[in-house]
Amino acid sequence: MMVLTKTLFHSKIQNLALLLLLFVAISNNASADDGYRLWLKYDRIQNTTISATYSKSFNFIALSGNSDILNNAVKELQTGLTAMLGKPIPIVKTPVINQGGIILTISANGASGDGYSIQMQSGNTVITASKDAGVLYGSFALLRHLQQHLPVEKVVVQSSPKIQLRMLNHWDNPEGPIERGYAGSSLWKWYELPETVDPRYTDYARANASIGINGTVVNNVNASARFLTAEYVHKVAALAGVFRKFGIKTYLSIHFAAPKTLGGLKTSDPLDPEVRKWWIEKTKEIYSIIPDFGGFLVKANSEGEPGPQDYGRTHADGANMLAEALAPFNGVVIWRAFVYKADPNADRFKAAYDEFATLDGKFAKNVIVQVKNGPIDFQPREPFSPLFGNMPRTPLGMEFQLTQEYLGFATHWVYEAPIFKECLDADTYVKGKGSTVATIVDGSLHNYRLTCMAGVANTGSDRNWTGNPMAQANWYAFGRLAWDHTLSPEAIAREWTQLTLTTEPKHVSAISDIMLRSRDIYVDYNTPLGLSRPWTGSHYAPEPWQNRSSRPDWTAIYYHRADSLGLGFDRTATGSNALLQYRPEVSRTWLNAETCPLPYLLWFHHIPWSQKLSSGRNLWDELCHRFYTGADSVLWMQKQWAGVASSIDPAIHSDVTGRLAKQYNEAIWWRDAWVLYLQTFSKKPIPAIYPKPEKTLEEVKKRVNVYLMR
Amino acid sequence: MMVLTKTLFHSKIQNLALLLLLFVAISNNASADDGYRLWLKYDRIQNTTISATYSKSFNFIALSGNSDILNNAVKELQTGLTAMLGKPIPIVKTPVINQGGIILTISANGASGDGYSIQMQSGNTVITASKDAGVLYGSFALLRHLQQHLPVEKVVVQSSPKIQLRMLNHWDNPEGPIERGYAGSSLWKWYELPETVDPRYTDYARANASIGINGTVVNNVNASARFLTAEYVHKVAALAGVFRKFGIKTYLSIHFAAPKTLGGLKTSDPLDPEVRKWWIEKTKEIYSIIPDFGGFLVKANSEGEPGPQDYGRTHADGANMLAEALAPFNGVVIWRAFVYKADPNADRFKAAYDEFATLDGKFAKNVIVQVKNGPIDFQPREPFSPLFGNMPRTPLGMEFQLTQEYLGFATHWVYEAPIFKECLDADTYVKGKGSTVATIVDGSLHNYRLTCMAGVANTGSDRNWTGNPMAQANWYAFGRLAWDHTLSPEAIAREWTQLTLTTEPKHVSAISDIMLRSRDIYVDYNTPLGLSRPWTGSHYAPEPWQNRSSRPDWTAIYYHRADSLGLGFDRTATGSNALLQYRPEVSRTWLNAETCPLPYLLWFHHIPWSQKLSSGRNLWDELCHRFYTGADSVLWMQKQWAGVASSIDPAIHSDVTGRLAKQYNEAIWWRDAWVLYLQTFSKKPIPAIYPKPEKTLEEVKKRVNVYLMR
Repeated sequence: MMVLTKTLFHSKIQNLALLLLLFVAISNNASADDGYRLWLKYDRIQNTTISATYSKSFNFIALSGNSDILNNAVKELQTGLTAMLGKPIPIVKTPVINQGGIILTISANGASGDGYSIQMQSGNTVITASKDAGVLYGSFALLRHLQQHLPVEKVVVQSSPKIQLRMLNHWDNPEGPIERGYAGSSLWKWYELPETVDPRYTDYARANASIGINGTVVNNVNASARFLTAEYVHKVAALAGVFRKFGIKTYLSIHFAAPKTLGGLKTSDPLDPEVRKWWIEKTKEIYSIIPDFGGFLVKANSEGEPGPQDYGRTHADGANMLAEALAPFNGVVIWRAFVYKADPNADRFKAAYDEFATLDGKFAKNVIVQVKNGPIDFQPREPFSPLFGNMPRTPLGMEFQLTQEYLGFATHWVYEAPIFKECLDADTYVKGKGSTVATIVDGSLHNYRLTCMAGVANTGSDRNWTGNPMAQANWYAFGRLAWDHTLSPEAIAREWTQLTLTTEPKHVSAISDIMLRSRDIYVDYNTPLGLSRPWTGSHYAPEPWQNRSSRPDWTAIYYHRADSLGLGFDRTATGSNALLQYRPEVSRTWLNAETCPLPYLLWFHHIPWSQKLSSGRNLWDELCHRFYTGADSVLWMQKQWAGVASSIDPAIHSDVTGRLAKQYNEAIWWRDAWVLYLQTFSKKPIPAIYPKPEKTLEEVKKRVNVYLMR
Repeated sequence: MMVLTKTLFHSKIQNLALLLLLFVAISNNASADDGYRLWLKYDRIQNTTISATYSKSFNFIALSGNSDILNNAVKELQTGLTAMLGKPIPIVKTPVINQGGIILTISANGASGDGYSIQMQSGNTVITASKDAGVLYGSFALLRHLQQHLPVEKVVVQSSPKIQLRMLNHWDNPEGPIERGYAGSSLWKWYELPETVDPRYTDYARANASIGINGTVVNNVNASARFLTAEYVHKVAALAGVFRKFGIKTYLSIHFAAPKTLGGLKTSDPLDPEVRKWWIEKTKEIYSIIPDFGGFLVKANSEGEPGPQDYGRTHADGANMLAEALAPFNGVVIWRAFVYKADPNADRFKAAYDEFATLDGKFAKNVIVQVKNGPIDFQPREPFSPLFGNMPRTPLGMEFQLTQEYLGFATHWVYEAPIFKECLDADTYVKGKGSTVATIVDGSLHNYRLTCMAGVANTGSDRNWTGNPMAQANWYAFGRLAWDHTLSPEAIAREWTQLTLTTEPKHVSAISDIMLRSRDIYVDYNTPLGLSRPWTGSHYAPEPWQNRSSRPDWTAIYYHRADSLGLGFDRTATGSNALLQYRPEVSRTWLNAETCPLPYLLWFHHIPWSQKLSSGRNLWDELCHRFYTGADSVLWMQKQWAGVASSIDPAIHSDVTGRLAKQYNEAIWWRDAWVLYLQTFSKKPIPAIYPKPEKTLEEVKKRVNVYLMR
């Protein structure tokens, strides 16, 4: 009898084990990593020592408060810990045992604003904040810590964001396409809303909250007036209803001419009382539907968009009209400084400064002027915008671009944190040494009441959110830097890699290496030495020969100024004198071609082809050197990536391997486009150590043209 | 000791059981049904009797041949059976045991063409075909049978497709957006191809093969010349490489002016020797890269597209030039008959017939003329195109539209099989009674050598492929009808529901009920009694008042002809006389307003508002009756759907519940748009039994205009 029973037990165990194995097999098969989970993967921890230690430390989650945000914090902790530890973690009101749990508390003594603290108290991990959102951020910070398999004791931290409004700007159009989007169509299903609410909106909000993003502008700055109709505000409200549960406020880009086009008024003049009234009523209506609405983002008198100048008014007039309407609700106006007139004699570099610097002090209190990091337009490398530091009485927000408009769309791997960081760390000297752009944007230098950092989103409906799975790192890095701009690109790269790809130390280093070098590599085969904007039509492949447009600053030759003598845009006193917009401490080294750092050389100087540079090479040879080594470096990226295959999910690894092959293909093509074109001016041979391009200039042009066909 | 052991066993079992439960819980949580699996779900069979019977019958899969297609057949069977039965199914070369397995064989005696037979032989299930693709289709047929939990013995069947080319036409543009697409952006990631091959392409091919689709045109008929460049043909080749492993050939839409725009020739005249040579060379180039390339789909001299008429040549001249280039490779030209000139006095209804009927017999042997089901353009209800039956010497292909351009985009639930079937079953009488459209399209009536049925795809990058998960049924129904047009919409609805949603018999009936009534309900609140084309701008909400366009047939008033006397387009002898294009047996009943079936009444007659109809109501009252009961019927759909909640995945159920709420909202709105507008002509009151519209005509117009803003 006992024997029989034993056999039965054996048999049961075997069956169960088999079933389990089968189930694991089927499940694994069904869920080859598609990148959907981003950096919130919560994979089961395989290291038994770490798993056992964590298991002892996390036996319950205790929450005393009750709110949507707090409940989401608890839910995330429970989901994450259950998955990582493979055991159920109960949620309790008061700890059932004294030790080994997580306690979430709201306390007036907690970190200020959105901040949080994580402390070890009597064997428990206590997350304290003064606001619900702080608890949520602290919970994600704890999960981040555990996903990196770091010791529990070392989680003790106090952290507060340096920037108040940490936002994504979506350039999503109402019918689905995303302007400059390379990851499918819009996440927002406007035709289905508000009745159908895609569960993906929740995952979007989770991802943002996990890196501290607390605002989102859901529609394109080239704004459709649709979004100001009640029909659409109700749709937006359904999104806001999801987002607010993760501490995220919803904003809208507005169409400045809406009083006319939508309201039927005769004008949209910001000083017209009827117009002001229209905005006041419209804003009231929006707040009646979305009580915690964030405010308006405005692109006005820029690239054909309507604006206050259509009526002889200033940007300040326009912004203040909207500020007046928003003020009763504590809403903000975010007014973009990305403006440039179609003046054939002007230097587009100077345009934003010229139009905005004189308006300093004229904006209402709830207005932020949002400035792109560089003076032109999200180039692979730009000097910082001279507006930073020159509007001490106006809160200046930072606008970074996450979507890779000028960075190879979804096929090139470019880690953008170095771009962001380079700008944030740049010293403006406006209040002496140490007046970095970061201290301006975070409000510390000029005591701005409002602070804002925005990233033009790289998200879309693609399953992996960003098209290129490696581009998830740019979304991640933006959020982390908006929270704390003192973080290093390297630290963020390592952190993202550990959360998203692998915790294997050598492979984390190898991947971080690729990431940290990726931007310079891209610059080298695309826009070395301070070249800019060779793109015209689609912003995909460079077309440096492009010389026809309705306006000169929409050609490529406007920017590189290649001629028989040399190359580059003279922005010194002999040229446009744009460098005058910087403090002398900044411009001093840039003004002199001898001392100007090579990455900025052609931004500021027209350099003769044969001029010897600080590298020891002449301009032409240095250009060839950069273009060729840049393209060749993609081979290095491929090799590095091949070397980490063993610890990366095969689906992700294969996907990126394909993209790197494409990137190499395109790097050669784009290198050749530049070299062959510039050679028609330099009349110099490509140094013998480099292979000759396999294609002629005409062939390269033809290939570019393929991508310009309708 | 024994006791201890027993306890240990107990404990092990409990641990394993707990682990299993936990794993199931986590997995389930992670995989709430997102619709991605379509009708290939292979859910574990819960009914133990069925599961046990199947388990006994399927212990191995034996395959003697070896090819990509055969291997995919085996793989699909193994994946499906493993998942449904929860046990591993080995693949063997020769059966290890004699009974209880699946044997796949290629035999010259197998079913002809793409057909297959499934027989029970000595306790095995034997799938036989004369081609690899037939084995694949048979394998999917077996899986379909088992997914419906039908008895194994009843799987015995022999089946061959009635149509030779069963195709999807994708109106996908190269930058991502899909013309008339409502499910995200294109599935094809052109910028990543050919280096990165999305695994989703395989699932797309699986889904198509599972319903017998064997061809796909990957780009929009408003074709970019990009697709004829080597750059893009290599991208297309990467797709073709995936598709051919599932028996699917790849086709391209071509830009007729390519010899000029791409080839640099002075003309694209189809009779010009240089032009002919260009196409011959281009075609050779394509076949050198894609050896099994299918051929060209052409939209020429239609809606602004270039074509042979630009050079005074005929459609036949254009098609034959391409046919000449394709013939050496057995490629086909599919030439669309969707043409209509901007003639203010013409009736667009007559255009295709007028231009094409006279060309009968003038097309090369490898040309198919592809005709939309109706004479206008995919309206919710149209009479069959009079071209069917009137080109006996030219293979006529059928073009159905799966994407819901005129059927409420992704928010309205409209099952389209009744639309397809209504056309296929229509009797043209061209060779006496029984000369149905189906017998023309399947080649049996006129002995066409080539046969083709195309569906304009409703797929996109949305996770669930079709936006509205219920629209998957339209893709499915199209494939099933292209294989066998004798299937009933009801049988297909039940089958699809069982595969995709639930096998619970009562709920299958309830859902099929919704599906089968859905099209008539939509017609009632949108275009009852033979109204058509009230859409202008976006084809979303009706705008029957729309009266301004560059050409009259792009207005709404052109189609409904509402005036103070009545409503409808007179196509009898007193009007455009379009009915003359049909055989007298067809037109006889339609010519007479007394005998004309109500669904077609206003297609053919201008009816006075007060005229009494066969329903007993006058025209105005009948219109109100249809509009109101149509909209009210959406409430019935909602109730039916609510009733099946217990057997539907909650995520899918909730998604569709939201869409139905939107559909009701819009049905009311669209009903009101028509009723209020038509009332300005009829001057009659809405019958008292119906509630008055809550909005004025002006308010309704305003709401429509929201969706027309940029």
